[in-house]
Amino acid sequence: MSQHSIRVGVVGANGYTGIELLRLLVNHPHVDIRQVTSRAEAGQPVSASLPQLAGRLDLAFSAPDAAALAECELVFFTTPNATAMHMTPALLEAGCRVIDLSADFRLHDAAVWSDWYGEAHACPELLGEAVYGLPELNREAVRQARLVANPGCYPTAVSLALLPLLEAAVADPARLIADAKSGVSGAGRKANLGTQFCEAGENFKAYGAAGHRHLPEIVQTLTAAAGSQPVLTFVPHLVPMIRGIHATIYAELNDTTVDLQALYERRYAGEPFVSVEAAGSHPETRMVRGSNHCRLAVHRPDAAYSGASRAVVLAVIDNLVKGAAGQALQNMNLMYGWPETAGLDNQVALIP
Amino acid sequence: MSQHSIRVGVVGANGYTGIELLRLLVNHPHVDIRQVTSRAEAGQPVSASLPQLAGRLDLAFSAPDAAALAECELVFFTTPNATAMHMTPALLEAGCRVIDLSADFRLHDAAVWSDWYGEAHACPELLGEAVYGLPELNREAVRQARLVANPGCYPTAVSLALLPLLEAAVADPARLIADAKSGVSGAGRKANLGTQFCEAGENFKAYGAAGHRHLPEIVQTLTAAAGSQPVLTFVPHLVPMIRGIHATIYAELNDTTVDLQALYERRYAGEPFVSVEAAGSHPETRMVRGSNHCRLAVHRPDAAYSGASRAVVLAVIDNLVKGAAGQALQNMNLMYGWPETAGLDNQVALIP
Amino acid sequence: MSQHSIRVGVVGANGYTGIELLRLLVNHPHVDIRQVTSRAEAGQPVSASLPQLAGRLDLAFSAPDAAALAECELVFFTTPNATAMHMTPALLEAGCRVIDLSADFRLHDAAVWSDWYGEAHACPELLGEAVYGLPELNREAVRQARLVANPGCYPTAVSLALLPLLEAAVADPARLIADAKSGVSGAGRKANLGTQFCEAGENFKAYGAAGHRHLPEIVQTLTAAAGSQPVLTFVPHLVPMIRGIHATIYAELNDTTVDLQALYERRYAGEPFVSVEAAGSHPETRMVRGSNHCRLAVHRPDAAYSGASRAVVLAVIDNLVKGAAGQALQNMNLMYGWPETAGLDNQVALIP
Amino acid sequence: MSQHSIRVGVVGANGYTGIELLRLLVNHPHVDIRQVTSRAEAGQPVSASLPQLAGRLDLAFSAPDAAALAECELVFFTTPNATAMHMTPALLEAGCRVIDLSADFRLHDAAVWSDWYGEAHACPELLGEAVYGLPELNREAVRQARLVANPGCYPTAVSLALLPLLEAAVADPARLIADAKSGVSGAGRKANLGTQFCEAGENFKAYGAAGHRHLPEIVQTLTAAAGSQPVLTFVPHLVPMIRGIHATIYAELNDTTVDLQALYERRYAGEPFVSVEAAGSHPETRMVRGSNHCRLAVHRPDAAYSGASRAVVLAVIDNLVKGAAGQALQNMNLMYGWPETAGLDNQVALIP
Repeated sequence: MSQHSIRVGVVGANGYTGIELLRLLVNHPHVDIRQVTSRAEAGQPVSASLPQLAGRLDLAFSAPDAAALAECELVFFTTPNATAMHMTPALLEAGCRVIDLSADFRLHDAAVWSDWYGEAHACPELLGEAVYGLPELNREAVRQARLVANPGCYPTAVSLALLPLLEAAVADPARLIADAKSGVSGAGRKANLGTQFCEAGENFKAYGAAGHRHLPEIVQTLTAAAGSQPVLTFVPHLVPMIRGIHATIYAELNDTTVDLQALYERRYAGEPFVSVEAAGSHPETRMVRGSNHCRLAVHRPDAAYSGASRAVVLAVIDNLVKGAAGQALQNMNLMYGWPETAGLDNQVALIP
Repeated sequence: MSQHSIRVGVVGANGYTGIELLRLLVNHPHVDIRQVTSRAEAGQPVSASLPQLAGRLDLAFSAPDAAALAECELVFFTTPNATAMHMTPALLEAGCRVIDLSADFRLHDAAVWSDWYGEAHACPELLGEAVYGLPELNREAVRQARLVANPGCYPTAVSLALLPLLEAAVADPARLIADAKSGVSGAGRKANLGTQFCEAGENFKAYGAAGHRHLPEIVQTLTAAAGSQPVLTFVPHLVPMIRGIHATIYAELNDTTVDLQALYERRYAGEPFVSVEAAGSHPETRMVRGSNHCRLAVHRPDAAYSGASRAVVLAVIDNLVKGAAGQALQNMNLMYGWPETAGLDNQVALIP
Repeated sequence: MSQHSIRVGVVGANGYTGIELLRLLVNHPHVDIRQVTSRAEAGQPVSASLPQLAGRLDLAFSAPDAAALAECELVFFTTPNATAMHMTPALLEAGCRVIDLSADFRLHDAAVWSDWYGEAHACPELLGEAVYGLPELNREAVRQARLVANPGCYPTAVSLALLPLLEAAVADPARLIADAKSGVSGAGRKANLGTQFCEAGENFKAYGAAGHRHLPEIVQTLTAAAGSQPVLTFVPHLVPMIRGIHATIYAELNDTTVDLQALYERRYAGEPFVSVEAAGSHPETRMVRGSNHCRLAVHRPDAAYSGASRAVVLAVIDNLVKGAAGQALQNMNLMYGWPETAGLDNQVALIP
Repeated sequence: MSQHSIRVGVVGANGYTGIELLRLLVNHPHVDIRQVTSRAEAGQPVSASLPQLAGRLDLAFSAPDAAALAECELVFFTTPNATAMHMTPALLEAGCRVIDLSADFRLHDAAVWSDWYGEAHACPELLGEAVYGLPELNREAVRQARLVANPGCYPTAVSLALLPLLEAAVADPARLIADAKSGVSGAGRKANLGTQFCEAGENFKAYGAAGHRHLPEIVQTLTAAAGSQPVLTFVPHLVPMIRGIHATIYAELNDTTVDLQALYERRYAGEPFVSVEAAGSHPETRMVRGSNHCRLAVHRPDAAYSGASRAVVLAVIDNLVKGAAGQALQNMNLMYGWPETAGLDNQVALIP
């Protein structure tokens, strides 16, 4: 690491998001990983359970401890929901900055948070301060943030796909549909029956059609863009692949003469991690496997069958990178004034 | 086979649909397979290329020949599009009945057919006679048919999911969306780059967002049900699995008080191959793997985000069975007055 | 079911083997399923958790109870190891016959059983009576058996591949290697981390290289065939697929002039479920998916590199069918004097 | 790139090996990619067909032309076999150095090459000069080489697994078996029926049991290590995954007291890309996905069944990295005196 590096800690590094974050952090030029916590494996070398990091990260897991973590300038949480909120106040007080990859600080409204996550929020007073870390929306606020709420995977894909339409007010906010599909790693690293190889393999299903925790998060972002709460139906699906999210967005245009391709290209001009594909493209999840990119394409389906005013937007991300760990690095880069692509541009999509 | 069996021929049996048809036919109690044609393998035993049929089908492939096929009472076509239409008139004239699993006779309008399939139709005069073989819609007509156009895989799933809404006029026909996902076998048995294991595996993508050949077929069916042409956006996607179709349907209800569960259960009461799952269910494609069932579930998504009038319908089929070969058997059973489930009820879904 | 059917019970039907057994039993012409037990789901309809059986099996799960099961003429155990041995004595005493698909009665030596299964055997006095249900080896004994120990999946594939060589004494029993590969369903239906989709997918690994429970079972069978204990190295591997076992056998021939192809064809002539493929073939696991077949091929690898005396035998089965539930039906057919293929020949391999 | 970079060309960059090489090269600190050739796509931007490289490689494909390529200091060939041999002499004459990732220069004996590759070798006079680029065996020779023959994927895994045993003469060279398993990308990027998703997915098979092109290459390497030609049976298998090779090696020890773990650890001490796992380990292919590592484990199987003298060695690599493109970078690093890990240590295995 360079002289200009910062001391970072990662709390709860044994899930897929944590593993992915470490994969990226060990290649970041300005990061000095000082603590990696895991209550279950405290005292064991990180490389014993994550041998792919041997030679790159020669630390032992420590038990999570706010006082000890306070030596870090920046602490990442890759913990289950409702964990980070218990340690974050002390860390902020101790002068740390925090990027939380869980859902604890994503919703502004503590009551809504409680409805979806099933318990009272431990520090509702921080919800107003937390910056929702979607750089393409909140870049300047992220730069100044003490506390970044790293967006969920589905919300990242769906929001990036819909923002141009809603910000430009060219689509009817009362007629939005997001049909989203995720690889199985989105379910986390837990021994569940439903995500066993023989249950999730060679299979496709929807889930949460009645409502999913990412829905209020998406709607909160879109409300800001649209100026009022849109009407959105969001149905997630489970794809028999490990990584990747594909969102298929259906919208109704207010103005059928709008040049959607130009609108999207203009909106994301200069964005290092959002690409607008050529008109007529169908981005594939593998095109972003292991990389921090979001790829978008806009379509106007056949008017003879779909009518003149329908729009379809396709978006792909790697749920563990742009949908989690990579976006967290992107936010860190903004917070410390480094190039936004530092530690991310050395990861080209793994194809095949 | 029993004394009451009929002589059947299968033209073009080397694709996935043809292989699947033979898998089912060899277990059908009333079928005597007399001819299996393949131009490329004429003279070779069928079991040389399809060893799973050894001992069950001891025939050699023959070259397709209308005169020879005329010994059969029933001829199935599992040929590429624009093939069956060239042999069908002669077969009908010779007194055969025909079930065509390709697209040649699915559209009533020869001009529309030409637009989507790229050539003039060879026997447009038969398009009026051909019965669209969706038993749940056209059971009585199938019984009498000389020529059955077996539905496409996407149209089967999407139509079964939408028929109850449109027939009962409870959904706005101007606001329909069908987001459909198919396993790779839907692309047929061809050496294409895009369906190579390393291209289609660990990957998810949309295709044909601008328009797909199954769209006019779906719309033709829905038009009959709705009384006028609906406005439908249909986007197909490729899932990294071998078999299965999942359709996710989004509709806007005219009447928010309608009991959708009851409506669907009533519409499909007594149907041997359509199951309406309990409210809140998410049917999975593996629940129908290798079987002729269609499983449906209806949802009313969270009104706080989706508004009060949205409906979501989920439908799964095995694209090679209910979406092709199994439905062809079901049609055959109707045509010959056998139990509709003959040769199909011995195939329980292979789980896992 | 026919008038000539028997009453059967299935104990522990919620794992993959039990589900597969029910899939096959509901299509068997002579079986009347009277009890399906599951302690966890007692009282619930079977079709609630196994909807694919709706309309085919209208029973509720019962709690396992020997007295109640005694109404059955035949009881199948698809329970975890060390379960069947506790109920079997009472069932036999009550006049039932038993087919145990677990490992409880496979080993003749109770001490060896205890070494590998970690507890004392509950009824060692039955180990001598139990017939090892590999029909190709013990057909006549199975016909008379009260208690059949249904073979393990790996032992079925490896034994069928090696029996001809050892019975004919053409291979050196001191130089045997079995490199075996299994789909993930062989690990059972449990929520384990190692068999999660994201852990077992896109991955290949060996396991149990130091020793696996199926090794003593294989060696016991081969010892009988060879006349003395052979020296066998057996390494199992986990393949990212749901079903299938592939065994690759390496042997050293005593006699390099032996016609292996003829030897194998002769050994398995007339066997309904073992096929010897043409010389030079490479059988594929999908060729037996869902079917009760074992497919074998023998090779003599290039003498310039391998020497003149090496033989390679390839064997494939579906681990859940010929390696478990299908073989159990085959054994039942023998026990009751029905055609050996009853209820099995209506299941052609599902390809693709 | 740094001031100390070299000009490189990549000939035939449209296959999986070429794509992977570009993925790694764009992150190499000392490489200036000047030419990427593709006859089929000459004139098109590389990023049009490989969009993941957009912004990282702003070149158009050129037609392969030796005179033009001569501006490069180093040329990589990722062409089909029997292509590089036609251009290499001119490039060497022009002062270029060459790393050939195809098989053209791997065998020392032109007659053997012709036997396996089906045509006369175009420049047999170079076979003596070409250095077989397995750094763990030929590190010093690679440093000086003008022409490096980059090893095949199977030979890399099998050779690394066997070298310690043969160099130390602790195993009987007359009793070697290599049972190897590869992901589908090893078959290249071609539209073949056998590697279609629906043919290779959910399937496992051996192939080339009678002899495979990698066999003479492996034997050539092992002969050098053992001092005489060993007797090796090599059977490759196709695994339904995209990347990865797993080799399972069976050997007979001359000396049953040898400490294999220590032997392997000593042999590979200091090797940056070979790890010897703890005794009893089972390395998994995903542990090296996208990385240049080879992971090895040695086992002594249960003597009660296997006898006292058997050894099993397990080896995993990513076939596209250590088995192809990564090893090519490693060789380049040696040739130019850069750190051997340059451009490789920023690629941690992608797990999951």
